[in-house]
Amino acid sequence: MAKNTHRTAEQMAAAQREISVSEFFAKNRHLLGFDNPRKALLTTIKEGVDNSLDACEEAGILPDLLIEIIQLQEDRFRVVIEDNGPGIVKAQIPNIFGRLLYGSKFHSRRQSRGQQGIGISAAGLYAQMTTGRGPRIESKTAKGKPHRFEIQMDFSKNKPLIAKEEELVEWHQKQGTRFEADLEATYQKGLRSVDDYMKQTAVSNPHARIRYLAPGMEEARVYERAVEELPALGEEIKPHPYGVEIGELMKMLRDTSSRTLSGFMQEEFCRVGAKVADEICTNAKLSKKAYPSRIAREEVDALYRAIQATRISAPPTTCLSPIGEERILEGLRKECDADFYSVVSRPPSVYRGNPFQIEVGIGWSRAGSDRLEVDETGRILKTRKRGTADTEDLLGGADDPIRLLRYANRVPLLFQQSACAFTKSIIQTAWKNYGLQHPRGSLPLGSAVIFVHMASVWVPYTSEAKEAIAPYPEILKEIKLALQEAGRKLGQFIRKGKRVEREFEKREYIDKYLPHVGIGLQEILGLSNEQREETVATLRDSMESTRKI
Amino acid sequence: MAKNTHRTAEQMAAAQREISVSEFFAKNRHLLGFDNPRKALLTTIKEGVDNSLDACEEAGILPDLLIEIIQLQEDRFRVVIEDNGPGIVKAQIPNIFGRLLYGSKFHSRRQSRGQQGIGISAAGLYAQMTTGRGPRIESKTAKGKPHRFEIQMDFSKNKPLIAKEEELVEWHQKQGTRFEADLEATYQKGLRSVDDYMKQTAVSNPHARIRYLAPGMEEARVYERAVEELPALGEEIKPHPYGVEIGELMKMLRDTSSRTLSGFMQEEFCRVGAKVADEICTNAKLSKKAYPSRIAREEVDALYRAIQATRISAPPTTCLSPIGEERILEGLRKECDADFYSVVSRPPSVYRGNPFQIEVGIGWSRAGSDRLEVDETGRILKTRKRGTADTEDLLGGADDPIRLLRYANRVPLLFQQSACAFTKSIIQTAWKNYGLQHPRGSLPLGSAVIFVHMASVWVPYTSEAKEAIAPYPEILKEIKLALQEAGRKLGQFIRKGKRVEREFEKREYIDKYLPHVGIGLQEILGLSNEQREETVATLRDSMESTRKI
Repeated sequence: MAKNTHRTAEQMAAAQREISVSEFFAKNRHLLGFDNPRKALLTTIKEGVDNSLDACEEAGILPDLLIEIIQLQEDRFRVVIEDNGPGIVKAQIPNIFGRLLYGSKFHSRRQSRGQQGIGISAAGLYAQMTTGRGPRIESKTAKGKPHRFEIQMDFSKNKPLIAKEEELVEWHQKQGTRFEADLEATYQKGLRSVDDYMKQTAVSNPHARIRYLAPGMEEARVYERAVEELPALGEEIKPHPYGVEIGELMKMLRDTSSRTLSGFMQEEFCRVGAKVADEICTNAKLSKKAYPSRIAREEVDALYRAIQATRISAPPTTCLSPIGEERILEGLRKECDADFYSVVSRPPSVYRGNPFQIEVGIGWSRAGSDRLEVDETGRILKTRKRGTADTEDLLGGADDPIRLLRYANRVPLLFQQSACAFTKSIIQTAWKNYGLQHPRGSLPLGSAVIFVHMASVWVPYTSEAKEAIAPYPEILKEIKLALQEAGRKLGQFIRKGKRVEREFEKREYIDKYLPHVGIGLQEILGLSNEQREETVATLRDSMESTRKI
Repeated sequence: MAKNTHRTAEQMAAAQREISVSEFFAKNRHLLGFDNPRKALLTTIKEGVDNSLDACEEAGILPDLLIEIIQLQEDRFRVVIEDNGPGIVKAQIPNIFGRLLYGSKFHSRRQSRGQQGIGISAAGLYAQMTTGRGPRIESKTAKGKPHRFEIQMDFSKNKPLIAKEEELVEWHQKQGTRFEADLEATYQKGLRSVDDYMKQTAVSNPHARIRYLAPGMEEARVYERAVEELPALGEEIKPHPYGVEIGELMKMLRDTSSRTLSGFMQEEFCRVGAKVADEICTNAKLSKKAYPSRIAREEVDALYRAIQATRISAPPTTCLSPIGEERILEGLRKECDADFYSVVSRPPSVYRGNPFQIEVGIGWSRAGSDRLEVDETGRILKTRKRGTADTEDLLGGADDPIRLLRYANRVPLLFQQSACAFTKSIIQTAWKNYGLQHPRGSLPLGSAVIFVHMASVWVPYTSEAKEAIAPYPEILKEIKLALQEAGRKLGQFIRKGKRVEREFEKREYIDKYLPHVGIGLQEILGLSNEQREETVATLRDSMESTRKI
């Protein structure tokens, strides 16, 4: 044991060491969503499903996924995730599944679920740390032979070791990948459970067929494909000049193969043509023929400021693949039986050079014992009891906080709700203007669901676990605009409904007291029972007709 | 621009790449506390001060720090942090300041402020990204010559490049280190400002002298040393068997130089003697002479379970350096002028094999226009107006949420309050039992400060920015026990005080109405003015004496 003595600079120097990114995350596993056994199970499945859906879409294949949870011991589960995607080339398997910070999505500017190259290897690392056994991967590409790997990670070096490797004689699918891992976990139902996650994933991915089998289920739950069409694949784009900082600009100037500054600006960025490039060079007081790698630091500073001062069109938004108002509405209708829906898909916007797009959907219901269905003019079509059929949906009572469904690039976000830009924007919106009760600093109240989606080439998550969106001002602003737009429609509907509701209350009142009025009239005027009934009916008719609803 | 076409497995494989940890964090800078220019300034200073204080304490030197913020342009500042520490050996400077995940503290089990080897290089990286210029470091060890480096980081490789290097002829201190960086930043005052941080740092580090000069100050603000003694240096300890998981155990078995399983258990862990080691081997049904690296995976599983089933003493707590009840009380008194203080230092506890210790201090004040000072029996000593002198302290009004001061290893935590285990524990504590108003799900209300400190060899932060503590169940439990203990004392005091307060109200009441009673008596009995005054005085005396407070 080291002595409790002070140390010199030389002794301290001897203790300095490199820290591998995997041992860092093994020690800080809560950063990756492995805080506890329950969440570990969800995170493992989430990372696997993200990768499978991304791979299928990138290859143009309608996803068909199998997710299986098998209980091995009280606190140990096996997770299986299988897809019909393009498969993975043999040589890449160990790195993809056994090395943190390795992947294809980090350096590309294209919308995808995965972006960091951490998730699935972190799941394997967690499995290995808690059970000693690393993940097993089977994969077959269209052209290749099927093969099977068992990975063991050297986490002090962040390198994959191959524990077993074999070529399989045949495989049960034409192509695809199967991931299997044993891990310490807990399987529970309820909010933020794997079941909950699967349901929410099905909502935002109607083009996927998902089979899901968990402990206690007699047979797999199947989320059938609702749409036979893949979402448009976002294009990959070059960086936008406004999103690049001085440090990165210096590096790009050093690394480019362009031989002139003007060429560099045009080739390395989007939205820069010859005219804009020349304008930037002029503003920076630099020759457009300057050799990029010879530009001194002070000049880069001038170039950076010139870029900010030059008018450049916003980045192309063909890189984005929003869900779309129609599909959000379909999803909401399927998920919750509300009286009113309001859906808004904002135009694309940009933060730090990254295009993004916000979509919002609101489902609202008049909560209470009875529910009215009204048409758009406010006329009551029918009244319906709220019953057990409603408890399965997402709507709570009128005095409960609204239910919030958060999505980033179609992936449901289940944790860290309070830290999320979505939540902050909702709290900061004036819901009282739109007819909802709204305690200060909290979510508004109401039997309602608010769905929020951010589509972006780079989602700024608040942690590696990708559970919440960091509150960049540009993002907050867009979310608020979307909420306000959807909120205004809701407010109009609620005000109309309120009027109807008041009338309805009046009608109930009359229904209740008219018979008593009848009895009174009968006594005073000495009417017969028939005359009394008749009088009451006449009174009711005349009142109904004057109310004109 | 890449076309919007689908890709094959082979095309996807070609896009797979390693991602360097620095480019990952450059893109995700909010993970490190560089969300915006204001926070970037604070984080830079915080990381520098952490390192300086750690180095001084480790070398047994009473810290003398200079922190300077110089405005260069509207949005650009220079930060200088200088210490009188042991200095840094020349060869280590580029790595320590120019490489993420490099340091001496990650692999040691010893209490320190820094632990990840990320902070100060991240500050340098942020500086370089936003101004193009990397950090400058001057350092002198007791034996060495002073030298100066300017670092430029190759962030796509996470490697430091040396932009300039020179040996200095002389340096103005015998030894120490000076860090200087230019960065895009905003300097503001108020809550969570650098000023606020400096003040809170001085509270938890009374053994440090800190000079602080910021824009707009005529001269440096000096926090003088209040204690001439260094806090006890925590010892470095070996891992505790309960805190090691199967995956790590396998690695340790592979890497050890011990030749028997029993020897391995004794040499690599704390709290394992020959007897405990043999018991573990017996429980695992393994020979105590087994050769460690030959133990198969299934056997490691048995060994792991045997460890959990064997009774092993808790890890030594000599590795911890709590602040101590006395110093917390001193700090609170200095910081806030309360009517009552309650301080609790819990005994050490363990989470995931890591010893930790929770300390809590409460300062509470009867808020309102007047304040009473009462002795311990509840007797009123004097009353005092709340005035401008009080607005500088941390106490808010009686209907405000209490002010929460969070510390980890003596470092103030200023952000992410709602995500922090401290906050969660406070919210879950039943403050109504202790005399405070407590809205559900919120902080309790009251003119009070709650100080919470966690000392540990490894603080589980919720993000790399080290802003909040992850809510591990063992940690939550200890915080709650500490809060309850301090809360009970507060409750007793408040109840006593409430009695006094009611009496006081009565007295005020009497003071107010007695003159009117006098006038009434004067009229009825026809008294002279002198007689009236006399009667009122007699009445007051007799009432005072019967109240007996």
